[in-house]
Amino acid sequence: MKKIEHIGIAVKDLKKSNAVFASLFGEAHYKEEEVASEGVKTSFFKSGPNKIELLEATNSESPIAKFIDKKGEGIHHIAFAVSDITSEIKRLQKEGFTVLNETPKKGADNKLVVFLHPKSTNGVLIELCQEIE
Amino acid sequence: MKKIEHIGIAVKDLKKSNAVFASLFGEAHYKEEEVASEGVKTSFFKSGPNKIELLEATNSESPIAKFIDKKGEGIHHIAFAVSDITSEIKRLQKEGFTVLNETPKKGADNKLVVFLHPKSTNGVLIELCQEIE
Repeated sequence: MKKIEHIGIAVKDLKKSNAVFASLFGEAHYKEEEVASEGVKTSFFKSGPNKIELLEATNSESPIAKFIDKKGEGIHHIAFAVSDITSEIKRLQKEGFTVLNETPKKGADNKLVVFLHPKSTNGVLIELCQEIE
Repeated sequence: MKKIEHIGIAVKDLKKSNAVFASLFGEAHYKEEEVASEGVKTSFFKSGPNKIELLEATNSESPIAKFIDKKGEGIHHIAFAVSDITSEIKRLQKEGFTVLNETPKKGADNKLVVFLHPKSTNGVLIELCQEIE
């Protein structure tokens, strides 16, 4: 876990929330990206070595739509940067964590990602991500 | 907003959660600290330039006790490091954000802190913190 790569925040209206976070940071988002496989449209803000990722659902089956239905807008996950995602998965499984997808999948921002089940991590949805070379 | 200083996670049992996060990071917490004025006992983990702060309530009136009653264990707030907290408060108030305490208060880890109301920040409780010299 090299650092917090980003924090993912579930929002209802990406355009509106882009404006809110631009006011907060005093700087606009630097990119938007759709991840069709996850049913999300994302935007990214920089905060020094870290990023904030806003996530809007693009369909009602999207995990983000379900999250907002259940809990409302707010923090959805924390992502930690790792250098070797495959060995981290193995290490964490040995430690007793529940890995949601054993095979890393392609996420936003040119990353391979896996998620840990929140029930094994104090209610926190944790993503591990590795930059794709 | 220089970086994500830390992420605060509300937990029921600090000792148990210290073990969970030590397994996650492959490294134990490096300190514990009680903030009596906030009714919390905290522990800190490092992740590169960032920290994770676990928060356990020390009494039933603690904001952490109320948070867990309402939402269960999980991510409680994001804290951003700022170099001049007073000017940031003024700037953010002008931008329309609701500052919960206009006068910065002493938080854990030798910091002056203020909180922004989640209703003005997409449901996210945001802390600004400045190192006390």
